[in-house]
Parts: sequence; structure tokens; C-alpha cells
Amino acid sequence: MTYSVAVSGASGYAGGEILRLLAAHPDIEIRTVTAHSNAGQPLIEHQPHLRSLAHLELQETTPEILAGHDIVFLALPHGQSGQYTDALGDVPLIIDAGADHRLESVADWDRFYGGSFHDPWTYGVPELPFRGGKQRERLVGATRIAAPGCNASTVSLSLAPGVAAGVIDPSDIVSVLAVGPSGAGKSLKPHLLGSELLGTANPYAVGGVHRHIPEIRQALAAARVTDADASSRSSRSATGDEGIRISFTPVLVPMARGILATSSAPIAPGATDADIRGAWEAAYGDETFVQLLPEGSFPRTADVLGANTALMGLAIDRAANRVVVVTAVDNLVKGTAGAAVQSMNIALGLSEDRALTVNGVAP
Amino acid sequence: MTYSVAVSGASGYAGGEILRLLAAHPDIEIRTVTAHSNAGQPLIEHQPHLRSLAHLELQETTPEILAGHDIVFLALPHGQSGQYTDALGDVPLIIDAGADHRLESVADWDRFYGGSFHDPWTYGVPELPFRGGKQRERLVGATRIAAPGCNASTVSLSLAPGVAAGVIDPSDIVSVLAVGPSGAGKSLKPHLLGSELLGTANPYAVGGVHRHIPEIRQALAAARVTDADASSRSSRSATGDEGIRISFTPVLVPMARGILATSSAPIAPGATDADIRGAWEAAYGDETFVQLLPEGSFPRTADVLGANTALMGLAIDRAANRVVVVTAVDNLVKGTAGAAVQSMNIALGLSEDRALTVNGVAP
Amino acid sequence: MTYSVAVSGASGYAGGEILRLLAAHPDIEIRTVTAHSNAGQPLIEHQPHLRSLAHLELQETTPEILAGHDIVFLALPHGQSGQYTDALGDVPLIIDAGADHRLESVADWDRFYGGSFHDPWTYGVPELPFRGGKQRERLVGATRIAAPGCNASTVSLSLAPGVAAGVIDPSDIVSVLAVGPSGAGKSLKPHLLGSELLGTANPYAVGGVHRHIPEIRQALAAARVTDADASSRSSRSATGDEGIRISFTPVLVPMARGILATSSAPIAPGATDADIRGAWEAAYGDETFVQLLPEGSFPRTADVLGANTALMGLAIDRAANRVVVVTAVDNLVKGTAGAAVQSMNIALGLSEDRALTVNGVAP
Amino acid sequence: MTYSVAVSGASGYAGGEILRLLAAHPDIEIRTVTAHSNAGQPLIEHQPHLRSLAHLELQETTPEILAGHDIVFLALPHGQSGQYTDALGDVPLIIDAGADHRLESVADWDRFYGGSFHDPWTYGVPELPFRGGKQRERLVGATRIAAPGCNASTVSLSLAPGVAAGVIDPSDIVSVLAVGPSGAGKSLKPHLLGSELLGTANPYAVGGVHRHIPEIRQALAAARVTDADASSRSSRSATGDEGIRISFTPVLVPMARGILATSSAPIAPGATDADIRGAWEAAYGDETFVQLLPEGSFPRTADVLGANTALMGLAIDRAANRVVVVTAVDNLVKGTAGAAVQSMNIALGLSEDRALTVNGVAP
Repeated sequence: MTYSVAVSGASGYAGGEILRLLAAHPDIEIRTVTAHSNAGQPLIEHQPHLRSLAHLELQETTPEILAGHDIVFLALPHGQSGQYTDALGDVPLIIDAGADHRLESVADWDRFYGGSFHDPWTYGVPELPFRGGKQRERLVGATRIAAPGCNASTVSLSLAPGVAAGVIDPSDIVSVLAVGPSGAGKSLKPHLLGSELLGTANPYAVGGVHRHIPEIRQALAAARVTDADASSRSSRSATGDEGIRISFTPVLVPMARGILATSSAPIAPGATDADIRGAWEAAYGDETFVQLLPEGSFPRTADVLGANTALMGLAIDRAANRVVVVTAVDNLVKGTAGAAVQSMNIALGLSEDRALTVNGVAP
Repeated sequence: MTYSVAVSGASGYAGGEILRLLAAHPDIEIRTVTAHSNAGQPLIEHQPHLRSLAHLELQETTPEILAGHDIVFLALPHGQSGQYTDALGDVPLIIDAGADHRLESVADWDRFYGGSFHDPWTYGVPELPFRGGKQRERLVGATRIAAPGCNASTVSLSLAPGVAAGVIDPSDIVSVLAVGPSGAGKSLKPHLLGSELLGTANPYAVGGVHRHIPEIRQALAAARVTDADASSRSSRSATGDEGIRISFTPVLVPMARGILATSSAPIAPGATDADIRGAWEAAYGDETFVQLLPEGSFPRTADVLGANTALMGLAIDRAANRVVVVTAVDNLVKGTAGAAVQSMNIALGLSEDRALTVNGVAP
Repeated sequence: MTYSVAVSGASGYAGGEILRLLAAHPDIEIRTVTAHSNAGQPLIEHQPHLRSLAHLELQETTPEILAGHDIVFLALPHGQSGQYTDALGDVPLIIDAGADHRLESVADWDRFYGGSFHDPWTYGVPELPFRGGKQRERLVGATRIAAPGCNASTVSLSLAPGVAAGVIDPSDIVSVLAVGPSGAGKSLKPHLLGSELLGTANPYAVGGVHRHIPEIRQALAAARVTDADASSRSSRSATGDEGIRISFTPVLVPMARGILATSSAPIAPGATDADIRGAWEAAYGDETFVQLLPEGSFPRTADVLGANTALMGLAIDRAANRVVVVTAVDNLVKGTAGAAVQSMNIALGLSEDRALTVNGVAP
Repeated sequence: MTYSVAVSGASGYAGGEILRLLAAHPDIEIRTVTAHSNAGQPLIEHQPHLRSLAHLELQETTPEILAGHDIVFLALPHGQSGQYTDALGDVPLIIDAGADHRLESVADWDRFYGGSFHDPWTYGVPELPFRGGKQRERLVGATRIAAPGCNASTVSLSLAPGVAAGVIDPSDIVSVLAVGPSGAGKSLKPHLLGSELLGTANPYAVGGVHRHIPEIRQALAAARVTDADASSRSSRSATGDEGIRISFTPVLVPMARGILATSSAPIAPGATDADIRGAWEAAYGDETFVQLLPEGSFPRTADVLGANTALMGLAIDRAANRVVVVTAVDNLVKGTAGAAVQSMNIALGLSEDRALTVNGVAP
């Protein structure tokens, strides 16, 4: 069967990437694309690379226009999805690329986002370890899916195997990311101008204020499997992320796309090299889109450009007493739109890799 | 008076930058430039941006040709300076931009470099805290100066004030650097090709193997001032860097120049925010070329392009229990050639900022 | 049926891109990949983005190893294909991505390349006007195909409709191209280092010496259809490119991939705006992979990244008396590997767009 | 003596670069900096690279605040200078970096800019050939100076020697420029976002609509010296630019700064190679900041980054019957702020190169 789809936020970067992937999906008919201020204009004016969709016109983003499709993708600024999701109760499958349905903790939402809190949906990172299994299992048949934050899923995938296996100490995680500006969207802000980004590395949200921090804590907490963890979760906090602390610093670098996350955590006492490497091998050895590179190899973002692949390299630095994981993803694919489409495939019972590529566009 | 100068390695990036700075120095006459395989060719063919030096021809790099100058700059591949320094005993001032005269520990040299060990020279980072004072004091009248490694001096400057003041715990430092490829020199290696670097972030030397690691440990150890530190130094190791551990990861990003180092360390027990910020303010408040930005501000590498300035921003992340310092330098200026010229000015008793600019070329 | 394929030069950029496209081709089995100095190593070490081909090992490039496949792709340095093509007489289809089989004129070959001349093969630019028709027709059933030079096909596609229709004067063509360095291959040359290419625009082969010039002249001459042209061809020269002159200047700019060619020629006397625009619309109105943008629109290379699309915008500048055509292609796809695969599809009678995408990866 | 200076538009790119240069000028005191919406804020927040000017605060841009200085620089959007220049009659020297006082032809102004026409001021490109001499002579003692358009001065300098000497035919000039986005200023427009500019080449103002076209025609017309030209100017048009036609296409490429202009024109009948090359050598042989490279050499924008230098390479392509000139400038220095400061130096009788560097910052 063919599923009809509506994509909101279709003139933005996340919406555009969802469309690029869906345009190659044999089971999908892109019926409706919507936008805000650009409504009424041809899609191709805002997404000139989407040649095969030149016939589509941007409509208003209203519940009425989004309703009546088998699947609705929401690619809206944070805080705007909620008003639509309530009114789209009849839509069989909704996937939100925004943050509105990601967090379980009201306190975290209030502190990092603010505004109305919305119920958390199933988290769209299939390969992520989750209470002894994977998030994938929860996505089968899901009807409401929260696509991940691009930085958050990159860091969570990087370290979750070690947290799940208990071979790293999650109380002192440090993650520094080289990121392309497309993750910040098409908004007209001075610091996103080309002249401000070309030939320079620019840090932002330094010191524990980035909105993806609680999302990472939540994902890593959910990766834990021991009884102690379970009990601590029920008794001590809503999100169960005690003992998980992360110093998180993103740095804008001069590439349109890509995240290269360098994440590290102290080696857990007694963990052998085999324990450590084995944890990641066990977690991702059978995965198509999350791959651990051989010892001594580390990925480049070019290797995953346009692909749904997360590549990671792992080093055990005994002198510094840290496990270091370097992970490359395309923020718009595996970080956002690819995660959304992969999750959709799982939810619908389609082949998980449909319309997704594992090979990057390099050089 | 005017000092006569010879610059070896003049067709490379470090040598070229030394020449760019010296060309604007009123007390310096650039008399001789030397190279290896390019000897016999006009300098301008290899440094087409150095228009004012178009009259110079590259000569062979031999002790005979380098001798007889007031000052000799060595900008040679690591391991090659030693053969010249022994033969240039009569030269009043030699400044080595290579690593040969940086390390005090033979063990570190053997492990990270190998080959013949050479005596350590005075370290050319004037602003760096050193046993209660600054390295500057040691540079006055110095005759043999080791210019720093670009990454090493950036990280050392970032954290030394906190180590000196005891407000951070140096046993779990994590530093991740976005760096431009000019720091790797003009060598013809596949991973340095433009096609491999454009539009991508590429990690290298992951997991504790980068050669600048012992240099950072040594510099931070020398920043300590307490009795306990002193005694531990004398009793426990040659270099006195016990208790200093660093996880260090450089990432090549698509800019020709620049280092943006994100460094963090645990907050020392009991250290207040005022203690912490005060340590950096005390260390750099009077410096021209090392500046702490106001709270909440962080630097970009563009802000220091072509300048001898190190700009740093500091955040205290209590949730992660870490002090985070983000520092921007131009690797070829403050990281190498500027450090060399600034140290030369001090050694000769000239105004410290002669031929050096504090304003970057941005955007 | 499934065709077995061997790709030589598989560790280079052109070879890698052929593999990336073929990896997604349902009718192709990539059986053999060969290289020169890298033989014996896993392909994935040299093409870390080709995750789905991680099982392949690079073999020696010899006629014996290349023989026995249904299709052989040659992605070798110019001048090296000939030695293999003679020995591979039994291979049903050979596609050469090098220059060896492109030129019809021995004089041009001698002047721009030198070394042994080889017979011209069918030119692999299907959409290119050719003596009243298209090159496509000649590709049906072809067994020996010369993939085009990336710059050459971009310029030829840009102007051929105007030459064919007689609405521009081909005796004073000017073409200036912004190009990414991947077109120059993975060779270790100083001017291709990242430090030399980041943040700068670098011209090369200025003043009429670029090797793609005779290829453009030949392609545009073949686009002509009038009797006068035909007779001039037969009587006056081997290649029939009298009256076709081009000033051609490529400029390396800081993007790994992409060609943006700005080409112009004088307006032919009497040609109306409708005549001019109509010529391009007639030539490309039905094409999938070569598209003329609406009046006032011009393409960016980002819009065709990773895609087999050539996008062009056309302006008629009466004040300057020139038709200006700006064309964007991905040099490794439409400029090389995509042209090769598209031509292969036609030669084999497969759907022309198999394994090729029309949508670019942007931003 | 020290001249007091006010710089308007000080939070923008042109204003920032004027300040960067003046900060190093021994005869200048930067007393006042003004802005529009950013008035009241510290300059350093908008120009974080100008460390030596951290004490300055942005004031309102009003005639009252600008008055009372020895020199006023106007770095305002086109069309806004006029309102100030009328009210600043008492200011001894005003230099306008905008377009308002560049054009002599009311018709050109109306067609390419629109709004109120203002009297042309002395054109601030000292090295430009002008009726048998140079523009420099007109700048001595000038009190009202129009700094050039960055693209316009680059192209005019490229070709004026050939026009003056009659060795090229100015009726069919073609110029294609690779340009960095800083020339477009800090305005918040979607096409200037980093995500839209990184990794891509983007043409704009194609087909004869760019505002610098009439400025080039005017400058090249003024380079002519023959009687015939003079008479034609008086009898046939206000600006005397008959017979000068230019096809002009700028292409944004991923570098913050820089212009690489590839300009060509037909060889005049009978002109020998010596005539042609001699024309440029005669024009620029004695210049410091405009340099013709040796035969076969062509410049890169990196070679002039941050410098006031225009480097040009010249090729004579007899096959294409064109003289090709490739010129590199830093659009913010030689293209704007450097031209302004150099002109100021001449007007005031100071050394022409004061505060200006000839060496670029490379790599």
C-alpha cells in the first residue's frame, strides 16, 4: 500500500531533508507540504535541490490541512508542535522532529525550554540501548514518535553501550561537538551568517545550557538495566538520571552539515579493554546504520554525508583513564530526518532501511 | 640597533609566518632564508603572499649559512633542529619552532617523539604562570628559546591559572580542539588534501597519542606553586607532573588557520565561583595578548586571525561539576610564530608587542 | 539479469564515485575493484564512506584481473587506459572515465595531452545535441564509451543548444568555472593541500592551456547541424571546429565537489529573446537530468550535490550583447561517474535513470 | 598632528575594517563610532576582533555626532550617505564607502540604484589610470572622496591599462568574479546564511543587473586618453563610456573575504604580446599595492588576505583572441577600507602606505 504524507515546516532544513528522503521512498506519496510565512509559494523556490518535487506548492500549516493523511511529519520550531498534535488525533502516525514530545521530566522541560509541557512520545533512535533491549522494539507499531535532537542522539549512541554494560562512569561525561550550522535551522540570526561562519570555529551554549543536555541524560539513564538503577529511578526521580552528568559544548565549524562528537567518560573500576570494546560490539555488531570502526580507526563527517549512518571509533586512554568515543553523523539525516524515516519504517512494518542509504557522499 | 636574522624552513608555514611578522619589525633585518629541497628558488614562489620579501632567495639549510646572524629561527620538522643547534654555538639568540628543545623528560621524549634527546630551552609562552610567577621572567635575556607547540600552549594557557590557584582538579582534564590543517605543515600526506578536509570534520591522534600531551603536562606542572607540589616534584618524578592527566583530542576542521580549544577539569572541592573566575582574572588581567572575555562571552577563531592574541571564555558548570574554558588562537601566530617573536622581543629587551597585532582579521 | 562489473582506479575519487552509484544499482554486481599502489588493501580503508562495500579488497590493475566481466570501468590517470583497452577486446562494455578515448583530433591530443593517440569512443553525455539529434542515440548499444571531462561536459551542455540553433556566435565564447578540487583527483600536489585551498580562490591553467578546451570545441562543433557546417567539417578540418573559440578559466574554490560554470557568447545577429530561450527549452525541455531554470533563476552547486543533475540558468544581456548561461553540476556525478552510469544504462537498454538521483543533497 | 576621526556604520563589515586599519595608524585618533540599531552598545560586542578598541561605545548616527571631527568615514547602506554629507559641510575630509557619490551619470544612478542623485566625489582608487595620468593626482588635497565598489575597482584595475594603451577592445569585456560574502555586508538575508554558502558556489545578479557595472564603465572610460575619446565624450554622452560593454557575473564562494576576478577582452588588432604586457607593466611597475605577477603566474585571494594589495596575472590567449587578467584583492581592504585609508593618506599628504600592509595573511 501507499501511505499519504503531509510534511509541515517544508521550507526549512529539517522539513526539506524529510522530503528528500521520502521522495525516494516507494511506499510514500508526498501529498501535502506546508509552511508558515512561505505558504502559497512553490516548494522548489525554497528547496531548489528537490527537483522531483517541483510540482508541489506550500500550503498553510493548519490542523485542517494536515489532517486526513496517513502520516504527518512535524518539522516546526520547538514549542509549536503541541497545538497541532492535539488537533490531529485521527492521524494514524505522527512524527515530530521538534523537541515538544521528547522529554519525560517536566522540570527539565521548564528549565531548558519553557512553555507548555507535552507528553513524551516514543523516542526515534532505534539502535539505542533501552533497559536491556533497544528502542527499536518500542517503535514497532508506534503511532506517535519523537525524532531525536541531532546532537543528543549522537552523544547518546556514543556512550549508551558503555553505560548499559557498566564499563564507564556516567557521572563525569564530557562531550565536545564540531557541528555544521544547518542544525540551527534557516533562521535569520547574525551569528548564522556565512561571513560569521566561514573560516572560523565558533562555540555556543557553553557551560551546561544547551537544550540537548536533559535529552542525553534521559537517554543514557534509560540505557541502564540493573535493579539498582530501576529502584533508584522509581524512588529518587522522575527521569531516573541520577548519577549521569555531562559537560556538553557544541562548536560551529565551517561545514553545512555534520556532527563530529568527541565524548569521553572515566573507565569504570575493573573494566578491561575487552569488556569495554565488547560492550560497543555487542550493542552495534548487528546494526546496519550504527557501526563501530576497527580499533585505531575514527570517522569523518564526510563519510556519512547524506547517509543515515552513525560511524564511531573508540579509544581506551589508560593514561587519562577515559574511554573516548568519536562519532560522525549527518545531523539532518541520522540526526533528524533519517531517524524519522527509519522510525516510520519500523512503525509501519516496512523494511527498516527503505529509502535510506548507508554510503556517504565523499569526498 | 638592527638585528640580522636567518630563518630556516622558510618555505614552510611556520617559517613563512615568522617572516610575515618579522617583515613588519623595525629592529630586524631579514638577511637569510633557507630551505631544504626548495633551496635555490625565489622565496616568493613558495610564499606568494610575502610581497615585501620578493627579493630573497632560498639558500641551503646548513650551519655555515645560518651562522653569523644575530638571531636564528629554526622552523624545521621535529628532530632536525638538534644537528644545527650544536653547530651554532656562537649565535647570540636561537629560537626553535620545533619540538626538539621543549621537553624536560627523556621518557616523554622517547615515548612521544623518539630519536636523540636535546636539552630543554626556555619555553616561549610569556604569559604562562610558572611557579608563582610567569614564564616571561625567564625569557628576559634568554639566548635559547623553544617556541611552544600550538595546541600545547593553547591548552596550557587555558588551564594554568586554575591549576596554579588550585581551583580545578588537574587529574581529569579533557581537551577537544577544533584545528586548522596549517598546524600540520606543508607535507604531502593524503589526509591533508583539500578534498579530504573541505566540508568535513576529521579527528586524529585520538586516545592519548598526540605529541603535545607531555608538553601540556609539563607546562601545567610548572604552573603549580604549593610546597606539596614542589616536594612531590623533587621526590617523585623528573618532570613533576604527577596528578596531571589529560584526555586530548584534536579535530581538523575546514579552516586554514585557528585553534578553538574546549578544555575542562573538575571543580576543586570548596572552590567558589569567585575563586575560580578570580584565578583567571588575576593571571591575565594585565596581559595584552591573553584576554579573558566577560562572563557569558566566548571567542571565535576569526577574532584572532593573524593576531598574537589568545582569547578565552570561562564557564562554571556546577551541574557537570566542571570548569570549562574555551580558547581561540591563531595556531601560526600566538601558537607558533607570534610566540617566537614575542619571546624574542622580551629576550632582547624590546617592547614586547613590537610587530605583533592584538586585533584579528575578521570576518 | 545481473551484470558483473570491475572498476579500476577504485581507490581514487572518480573510481569511488562510480562505486557509490553502482552500489545502489539493482542490475549490477560489483565483483572486482583494482588499484595501483594500494592493491592488496581493503577498499574501505581508501573509501571509508562506502560502507556497503566493506567486503571488497583492492586487486592489481592488470588486463587479466579486469577481463572476464560484463562491464569494465576505467578510472585511471590520463594516458593509462590505452594499454588496457587493447587487451580487453572481449569485454562487452568498457567505459573509460579518462581522456584517452575522447578526442577525435590527433593534433589536439598531441598538443594538450601527448603520448599515444587512441581511437575516439562514443561520447557519454546523452543529452548533448549532436548533428540535429542527441548523443543519446549513439549510446544505445554502444560497447566502448568515453565518459566526459567534467568541465568540458558542463560547458558543452551550457552552450550546445545555442550553437545548434545558431542563436549565439561560437567564435568568442568565454567560460569561467568555480570548481572543487576533487576534479583534480587524489594526487599529492602542493597546490591541492587543504591549507592552500581553504578560504581562498585559486585560478589554474589560465590562458588557453586547459586540456578540456579541445573537448569542448569538438562537442560544440558536433552540435551544429547546418549544411554549411557539414561541408566545412568535411572540407576544412578533421574535427570541424572552425569558428569555435573559447577562453576558458577554471578557479579552484573551497568546496570539495561542484562546478559552477559561467559561460557566455555573443548574441547572433537577429536572434530574438524568444529564439534564444527557445533553443535551450527545445533542447532540454524533456530531459530529466539537464534542466533549464525559469527566467531569473540561477543554480547553486549545492542543489546538485551527489545528484546526476545539471541545472542551468540563462540570461540575455543586451547591453553586453551576450547570452550568459550559468550551469551547476557535481563534477564527480554528472561530470564523471553519473555520466558513466547513465551512459551504461542506455547502452544496456536499462532505464536511463537507474541508480541516479535527480535531487541534490542540500544544504 | 593627530587627526580626529568618526566612523559611521561601525558595527558593519566595512566600518569594522576601516577601524581595524585606523587602529594601527599613528596619525589617527578614533574618537567616535556610530551605528543605527546597535547604538548604545559597546563596539566590541559587534566587532569582537577589535580588541584595542574595546573602550569605544557605539553612538547614534546623526549629523551632530559626526560633526566636529577632522575626518568622517561613512560606511552606510547605499542611499543613506547623502542626508549626512549635506549636513557635514564643515568637516574637512569626508570619505564615503557607499555608492552615493561614485557615479557621474544620473541615468546610470536611476537605473541601477534609484533615489536621490548626489554629486560625484573624487574616486578613491589611486593607481587607476585616468586620462593619461592616475587617479592619485586628483586625490591630493581632496576633501570629498568616494571609496570604490570592491568588485568595480578590482575589474577596473584589471583592464584599465589595456584600455588606456588601446591594446584591448573594451566593447566586449567579460568578467566573472569569485567573491566572499562579506562584500554583501551583515544584512540578514536568507541567501547569506552560512548553511546556504558553505560547500557551494552561488551566482547572483546575473545578466547585466549588478550595480557595479556602470562604475566599471565609467572608470574604464576615464582611463582613455585619445582625442577621439575625448571628443566622443563631450559630444555623445555624459559619462563618455560609449564603446565600453561588460558582461559581469559575480559568484559567491565559501570564503569570508576575497575577490578573484577573471576578466578578459578581445586583443586589439595589431597589438603584439610586448605591447600588451608592456601596457600593464607601464601602468603598475612603480606601484606598491598593485602588482603584475611574472608571466605564467596568477594570484590567489589568500595571498592578499588582510592586505591592501591587488595582485594580477595576465595571459594572452591567441587561440581565443583574448587578453585574460586574473586579479585577487581582499574586498574589505583594497576593495573598500584600504582604498579609503590609502586615499585619506594621499589627501592629507601622509605617506601613502601608512597603516596598510602589502603582505597577505596566508595560508
